[in-house]
Amino acid sequence: MKISHIEHLGIAVKSIEAALPYYEEVLGLKCYNIEVVEDQKVKTAFLKVGDTKLELLEPTSEESTIAKYIEKRGEGIHHMAFAIEDGVANALAFAESKGIRLIDKAPRKGAEGLNIAFLHPKSTQGVLTELCEK
Amino acid sequence: MKISHIEHLGIAVKSIEAALPYYEEVLGLKCYNIEVVEDQKVKTAFLKVGDTKLELLEPTSEESTIAKYIEKRGEGIHHMAFAIEDGVANALAFAESKGIRLIDKAPRKGAEGLNIAFLHPKSTQGVLTELCEK
Repeated sequence: MKISHIEHLGIAVKSIEAALPYYEEVLGLKCYNIEVVEDQKVKTAFLKVGDTKLELLEPTSEESTIAKYIEKRGEGIHHMAFAIEDGVANALAFAESKGIRLIDKAPRKGAEGLNIAFLHPKSTQGVLTELCEK
Repeated sequence: MKISHIEHLGIAVKSIEAALPYYEEVLGLKCYNIEVVEDQKVKTAFLKVGDTKLELLEPTSEESTIAKYIEKRGEGIHHMAFAIEDGVANALAFAESKGIRLIDKAPRKGAEGLNIAFLHPKSTQGVLTELCEK
């Protein structure tokens, strides 16, 4: 598995509207896109910091996994996503061969058209981990 | 406040020894240093991914804030640290002027000799946020 950098951090927030003033006016970052990902029932705001994006994730439904996460644990960093240089499918196969539990057995489409897949936090010391490629 | 990149992510783990095989053998990252930070009662393992360091934080005492964090919330991403280009003291004053609650009123020394200070997660939608500079 060849990781180039942290592609993004997913941050669960109750409200993008309430969170953005902190990220933009205090931290001085710039939101360059807001997108709804229907199948994950989230609205996402993207900001860039260095090589990495911050993705603020606001649930659009109470059934969203993000809504359940916030209910259980409160707002905060939800997942970490690595940019994979040699293919997410390869990386999944390699991780599985090392005994890592997979959430996604094969890559699927995520926000911004990336190929993505998640590793299970039970195998990654509690860090929900996403692998992605353009 | 001028942020150049995410300097590091602090990841709370019960055991660095147990966590490192995942980071090194599965993700293919390299641990380049292990350091004990006495006043924070943690042992820290550093890995680099792109511009950002991952800092695995293992408590060395039950009184460590990391031990309490793990007890309450389990292992996972504990904080996000931004590299500040125009000084942590300036950034703190600016954040305070914007109504952000500070944990540290002035910069102090952290791991690797950086000047660091924390913003309070009550003001940052649950994300414990560190500002740091070389």
